[in-house]
Amino acid sequence: MTSPVPDPSPELLQRALAVRRAAGQLAQSSDAERQAALEAMAAALEQASAEILGANAADREAALADGLPPALAARLVLDGPKLTAAVAGVRQVAALGDPLGRRQLHTELDQGLVLERITVPLGVVGVIFEARPDALMQIAALAVRSGNGALLKGGREARRSCAAIHAALQQGLAASAVSPQALDLLTSREESLALLKLDGLVDLIIPRGSNALVRFIQDNTRLPVLGHADGICHLYVDAEADGEEALRVALDSKIQYPAACNAIETLLVHHAIAADFLPRAVAAFVAAGVELRGDAGACALGVPLPASEEDWGTEYSDLVLAVKLVDDLEAALAHIARYGSRHTEAICTTNPATAEQFLRAVDSAGVFANCSTRFADGFRYGLGAEVGISTQTLPPRGPVGLEGLITYRYRLRGHGQTVADYARGDQRFLHRSLPL
Amino acid sequence: MTSPVPDPSPELLQRALAVRRAAGQLAQSSDAERQAALEAMAAALEQASAEILGANAADREAALADGLPPALAARLVLDGPKLTAAVAGVRQVAALGDPLGRRQLHTELDQGLVLERITVPLGVVGVIFEARPDALMQIAALAVRSGNGALLKGGREARRSCAAIHAALQQGLAASAVSPQALDLLTSREESLALLKLDGLVDLIIPRGSNALVRFIQDNTRLPVLGHADGICHLYVDAEADGEEALRVALDSKIQYPAACNAIETLLVHHAIAADFLPRAVAAFVAAGVELRGDAGACALGVPLPASEEDWGTEYSDLVLAVKLVDDLEAALAHIARYGSRHTEAICTTNPATAEQFLRAVDSAGVFANCSTRFADGFRYGLGAEVGISTQTLPPRGPVGLEGLITYRYRLRGHGQTVADYARGDQRFLHRSLPL
Repeated sequence: MTSPVPDPSPELLQRALAVRRAAGQLAQSSDAERQAALEAMAAALEQASAEILGANAADREAALADGLPPALAARLVLDGPKLTAAVAGVRQVAALGDPLGRRQLHTELDQGLVLERITVPLGVVGVIFEARPDALMQIAALAVRSGNGALLKGGREARRSCAAIHAALQQGLAASAVSPQALDLLTSREESLALLKLDGLVDLIIPRGSNALVRFIQDNTRLPVLGHADGICHLYVDAEADGEEALRVALDSKIQYPAACNAIETLLVHHAIAADFLPRAVAAFVAAGVELRGDAGACALGVPLPASEEDWGTEYSDLVLAVKLVDDLEAALAHIARYGSRHTEAICTTNPATAEQFLRAVDSAGVFANCSTRFADGFRYGLGAEVGISTQTLPPRGPVGLEGLITYRYRLRGHGQTVADYARGDQRFLHRSLPL
Repeated sequence: MTSPVPDPSPELLQRALAVRRAAGQLAQSSDAERQAALEAMAAALEQASAEILGANAADREAALADGLPPALAARLVLDGPKLTAAVAGVRQVAALGDPLGRRQLHTELDQGLVLERITVPLGVVGVIFEARPDALMQIAALAVRSGNGALLKGGREARRSCAAIHAALQQGLAASAVSPQALDLLTSREESLALLKLDGLVDLIIPRGSNALVRFIQDNTRLPVLGHADGICHLYVDAEADGEEALRVALDSKIQYPAACNAIETLLVHHAIAADFLPRAVAAFVAAGVELRGDAGACALGVPLPASEEDWGTEYSDLVLAVKLVDDLEAALAHIARYGSRHTEAICTTNPATAEQFLRAVDSAGVFANCSTRFADGFRYGLGAEVGISTQTLPPRGPVGLEGLITYRYRLRGHGQTVADYARGDQRFLHRSLPL
């Protein structure tokens, strides 16, 4: 079996080394220098707006000629208002607090032997994103703000847009204390595949695209991947739910943006409220154009199509919803544990004890009571910006802000201390906490 | 090419499911319940000490008969004092602060819509450790304290010891609020291999053993692995070092426990101090039984053997040390960046500015000034106990305490809020920080 991932070419290795070197410098820059660099990036994007919009128009024309599917073509669009919003986004990231140099731990191990744990950048991130060219600006801003170099690979369809944006970003950085070499743009499919093999040169891969893209990347790299392949989210409508409120939350959770990973795929309804709730819910969902697939109990109450076993484990990412009646909270929890992807689950209930039981028991990155699953998002959480959403269990989990791009380092300052003295018992550790 | 890792048997899947169910209950237990469980585990180990010591004697006898290498046989030993120390360790872990239920973030997204981020257990950890049977007690204590289930696999040589320890731990848990099913002991090689494929049932693999074991596991699982394959640590002796102190630190860093990952493999010496420092260092290292391999400059000053290119990238884990002269701090940093494994590096210098430059520039989990690299250890750092040392860049990094066994979850409590209202602009986010 040959791996589908080619080895990096000497040219790519050279480029990655250059990014790593630039990132090493960037990691030691001051907060003010990084803020100024983001302002220079924003200003350069504004100055180059004609070129960027022109390049995007050319990408869209080519997409039309190539018969690109409309959904993909729509994501490609970068018009004036979108560019303005993206530039404003760069300035918002500049305004976020400095994630670097924060002291998380400060301990006097012994007299004159002081340990501290300080936040530092990861190093170099590799970002692979599909069609949407505005992602390039957002990720570049997040990377520089957090002191990281980045190897960026956009979709083939957006290559003219990405090249124009990247040129502007480099021009901006050239007028700052941050080296333009900190951001490199990969253009070929071979390069983006070889990126997955840059062990030791890249510290984190961030795929921003389809589930299939994320799964392919997870299967083909030893580097850590920040992302999630599945978003099978549930809403459980409890026996003691407020039916009106539950319906509003259910509709929003499904139809506000059905392609999003935090939209629900399955609605679980307590049997005691089903006869009252479900017929109204069916009418509302059908009116909203949602195809409903139910178990026997749900079908008996008006759900038009039967659900198969496969439905419970499917992320539709579309106007389709599976519906199931459950006997009690325990049955709802068991269904979620079996079929969920630990992304986001919600309960609707007026009983606070039931809500708290759900919030305690469900083992997902987000667990909500009486509100829409669509709130699972970095901006809505108030994180300021989002690198991505992670469904891995280890932190960073859930919507990830700048936090996903930093790590920490232990520093220890002494005066010639040796471990042998402590091992022999001549010296003893104090382990006294010092103020952060 | 067939994978060396077999699929889990139905029996192993059943057992892993049982651990996962028990872990789900354990995750919701109180601090006091988990502390009491650890006390019960400690008491049961004390009660079963005769059985445990007898089982260990049988393991050692079998090892002798099988001609096990002395180093491995030594790690197998669990005598009275060691067992007493291990039981005391279980009680020390009980006394550590509760890592669960800590609120890390608390934000009012809008009136009546409150987000919090709470620490929770990972779920189930899979631990594979070689020979040393005391590791089983330490890891079991850490797992239960942090609310995690564990699938534990000890070395074949220690199977009688592990079985006796596991039986005692289960007996202890049976007298507590924690289900004995939370800790399962795997015994066959097939099971420990299949453990690597328990996606969705196991959240983290912790290998405690040789570099070869860690590397094999990293290459054969999609699950996250907490560990490190390489520990190529450096000590740089600066031109302005105190020679006496630098020699003491260098010796401790190499010989205090040469098999440890935080022992140095390469000594970098500034050329300006080399003529004074190196001949004395060579004499001291040779007297301590250390084989020295140097570059041309080092050999000219008394290092007996020449080093090859391969030496700079080798973790000897033994009484061997590579020595190189460097022109300045920059050259030392470049050597570390090229050959280091980002584990732990130290500088000896009396110049505070040089020390700070080194502490800022070196991108390793631990960066030390004027003390031994051997301090890179969870106990010495004051973390109370150590799960392992991680050389990955993402947190947890460096020596990892209970922190490595926990993650967090976002909880959002509302009153029927929907995202559509905010998307339309009818509602605006407050994002007001609340007290933790």
